[in-house]
Amino acid sequence: MEIKFDFNNFMAEFIGNKNGISESEVNNFKNKAKKIHKDLMEKREKGELPFFDLPYQDKLAEEIEKTADDISKRFDYFIVLGIGGSALGGIALHTAINHPYYNQLSNEKRNFRPKIYFLDNIDPVFISSIFDVIDLEKSCFNVISKSGGTAETASQFLIFLNKLKNTLGNASYKKHIITTTDAKKGKLREITDKEGFLNFVIPAGVGGRFSVFTPVGLLPSAITGIDIKELLKGAAEMDKKCQNENIWENPAYLNAIFHYIFDIEKQKNISVMMPYSNSLKDIADWYRQLWAESLGKKFNLKNEIVNTGQTPVKALGVTDQHSQLQLYVEGPDDKVITFLTVDNYKSIMEIPLEYKEIKDISYLSGHTLNELIKAERDATELTLTKNHKPNCNIIFPEVNEYTVGQILYMFEVQTAFAGGLYNINPFDQPGVEEGKHFAYGILGRKGFEHKKEEIEKRTPKKDKWVI
Amino acid sequence: MEIKFDFNNFMAEFIGNKNGISESEVNNFKNKAKKIHKDLMEKREKGELPFFDLPYQDKLAEEIEKTADDISKRFDYFIVLGIGGSALGGIALHTAINHPYYNQLSNEKRNFRPKIYFLDNIDPVFISSIFDVIDLEKSCFNVISKSGGTAETASQFLIFLNKLKNTLGNASYKKHIITTTDAKKGKLREITDKEGFLNFVIPAGVGGRFSVFTPVGLLPSAITGIDIKELLKGAAEMDKKCQNENIWENPAYLNAIFHYIFDIEKQKNISVMMPYSNSLKDIADWYRQLWAESLGKKFNLKNEIVNTGQTPVKALGVTDQHSQLQLYVEGPDDKVITFLTVDNYKSIMEIPLEYKEIKDISYLSGHTLNELIKAERDATELTLTKNHKPNCNIIFPEVNEYTVGQILYMFEVQTAFAGGLYNINPFDQPGVEEGKHFAYGILGRKGFEHKKEEIEKRTPKKDKWVI
Repeated sequence: MEIKFDFNNFMAEFIGNKNGISESEVNNFKNKAKKIHKDLMEKREKGELPFFDLPYQDKLAEEIEKTADDISKRFDYFIVLGIGGSALGGIALHTAINHPYYNQLSNEKRNFRPKIYFLDNIDPVFISSIFDVIDLEKSCFNVISKSGGTAETASQFLIFLNKLKNTLGNASYKKHIITTTDAKKGKLREITDKEGFLNFVIPAGVGGRFSVFTPVGLLPSAITGIDIKELLKGAAEMDKKCQNENIWENPAYLNAIFHYIFDIEKQKNISVMMPYSNSLKDIADWYRQLWAESLGKKFNLKNEIVNTGQTPVKALGVTDQHSQLQLYVEGPDDKVITFLTVDNYKSIMEIPLEYKEIKDISYLSGHTLNELIKAERDATELTLTKNHKPNCNIIFPEVNEYTVGQILYMFEVQTAFAGGLYNINPFDQPGVEEGKHFAYGILGRKGFEHKKEEIEKRTPKKDKWVI
Repeated sequence: MEIKFDFNNFMAEFIGNKNGISESEVNNFKNKAKKIHKDLMEKREKGELPFFDLPYQDKLAEEIEKTADDISKRFDYFIVLGIGGSALGGIALHTAINHPYYNQLSNEKRNFRPKIYFLDNIDPVFISSIFDVIDLEKSCFNVISKSGGTAETASQFLIFLNKLKNTLGNASYKKHIITTTDAKKGKLREITDKEGFLNFVIPAGVGGRFSVFTPVGLLPSAITGIDIKELLKGAAEMDKKCQNENIWENPAYLNAIFHYIFDIEKQKNISVMMPYSNSLKDIADWYRQLWAESLGKKFNLKNEIVNTGQTPVKALGVTDQHSQLQLYVEGPDDKVITFLTVDNYKSIMEIPLEYKEIKDISYLSGHTLNELIKAERDATELTLTKNHKPNCNIIFPEVNEYTVGQILYMFEVQTAFAGGLYNINPFDQPGVEEGKHFAYGILGRKGFEHKKEEIEKRTPKKDKWVI
């Protein structure tokens, strides 16, 4: 059950020479691709890019499943404290595999698995509201942070730790906390060891946005009964395809090359991901981080200023046909669109015959929603193609752990490879450091007094420019 | 309690001459603005732009509230069948005002108001799943469609109508349906009159994306207890400001001019809206439709090909600092960023003192999440500004019906005015028609056989371009 990458509508033959790409344009990248491939494989062998080997962790998967089963029996609520890469993978998997109204289901319909909440923000209304829907005594908190220094997660941790201590007492609060953090370094490791919290390890060298196949994504998934072994198998399946040096047979490399050409040579600075499936919508969100944070860089590896990076955009089919499609069809030629299509949905919904006499409505009867959503996706693809807008299609035979594992792994390799094309480092994020330092300065953290000073010395805003 | 528009960081004085805008550049638009203003006001007086006057409907609001109270007593579930403009306004208001976990609250905590669901897609998994969480006998369905011809809503309607008939029998299914549609035209009106459904009217001349202040947005809001009169008062408050011909005092006109200059003269084809509040996140989604569908146009009013339209992007503070900020800070100079900031959140969350000895964490203690989110927003603004990235700030003293009414109305006027600047029609959406026709052709609707033929005659895709 393999996902397929259909790039016909990237080609000049289908969308014309102005926006489309020819085979020879792609072939121009053969040598470059070979070099990048060699570089990636060398680094992989040396263990410098450990994300590559995450699909092969059967023992860890078993351990996680065992813990998850145990937690499931002991708790009714599982709350993930994490943000960015510590949350997006888990959310994407939850939305992809679980029931759309999972937390509203009865215990029976949830197979007696805990309700799950991802607290991926510090909005005080959002955080305080959780106490209206959970029972602290039946809640398990999974604190996810590589370093422990992330201010958002640390703050949440302090809040919930304190509540647990006050509610449950010093004897038992520790049983309600699982940490997922570095094996050796960082404050969360220090605390974990001191407190004796149950914990899982984020392997060294795996950044947040490449961590979905570590306990970061796997533990919350296993808690709700997602088959994480199948997920890893799917990733391994894609790994095989993505080790192919032939760019015409490697979907990750090929899609990276297309996107690079569209961005750099054809001024398409926007990458839209449009799943025709509510289940896949948060994969688009996960991709947003992966693509944006990896490729949005000021400097290249030669230390030249380049300011690269496509802006990833999430759209939902068919919903966003009624919101964004007008712009996609008639607006500027600045987008590359990726559809995620599902061949077989988990349910079939028939449209019954009613109002037979009203032809403008009864033509729908006898069809299924499955046919309707497929017809609308096809129609959208046709319209965009007719208007010379580049679009491709990633086809899921079904949405399940195995196919989702494939797509996530494919995008990770695609992103790593694209880093080579842009000649930037796809694994760092230097641009967010200064913002953190400003925040530390404002909050009075020791060592950041100079940032506070810098703020205080700024030209004050003008009142007349606030209306 | 007025919202404020702070545009200091749009100005060259703060972000430099390359990306920033000077007062005189804005003043160059004075004459054009005067003309557009005159045109809008004339059309408003003639009743050609009825969205302008929607804030003034006290009687309708009372009627809706009465119905909502009645429905609240009779039903436990309220399900909106609608898509695009028929759903986005209601969703935005629900998220802005109601509890983040509204549907998971106990009846007491929901003030015995119905749970609410917006079925804004036709994904068969998404639709069939609703039956796992509602009880049909206690459910009221609000079918929202101007014409009744929207295939998605019509299909949903047929499905739920049929289920209601089969479950409740012919005698009582009618009491479970409320339609919101045109007063005279369309198939849903025809059906409504024939069946005798309770119904509300979408005023003629008000398009979906400008319909939040009609029963489209007001009825679902009133059902959950949102104060729709306050909402309209807020809109009316903003209407006063937005009738001001002086562009320096009219936030809607001024923001439209800024965005137009950034797009056309400074190649910033992306408009990011980044609320620092989970409550405001779906306002960003509502704005996405408004801005994209109104301004994304191929032809201007002189029938010249222009292919205009900024791509609106939704981001969430602080969450997306860990996903998109790297790109916003270091990536291309192609974005205008709008923060939505909240001065006073409904809750205050203190960060308690724990792990006193670990300075890298304990510096957070004594602060509140409110301070932390504010510090992070300020820090993000500072970083972007220091990197010469244009950003503005719309400041909410609080998030409530009155302030939300203001922002929604402001963006509507801003969009209408921007249509004048681009010299396009912001009220149509011709680009989505062809897609609909292709879908009709595929589904075998009478009159669209030629579209089916067109599809069949297309060059077939190449197998080698699917891997």
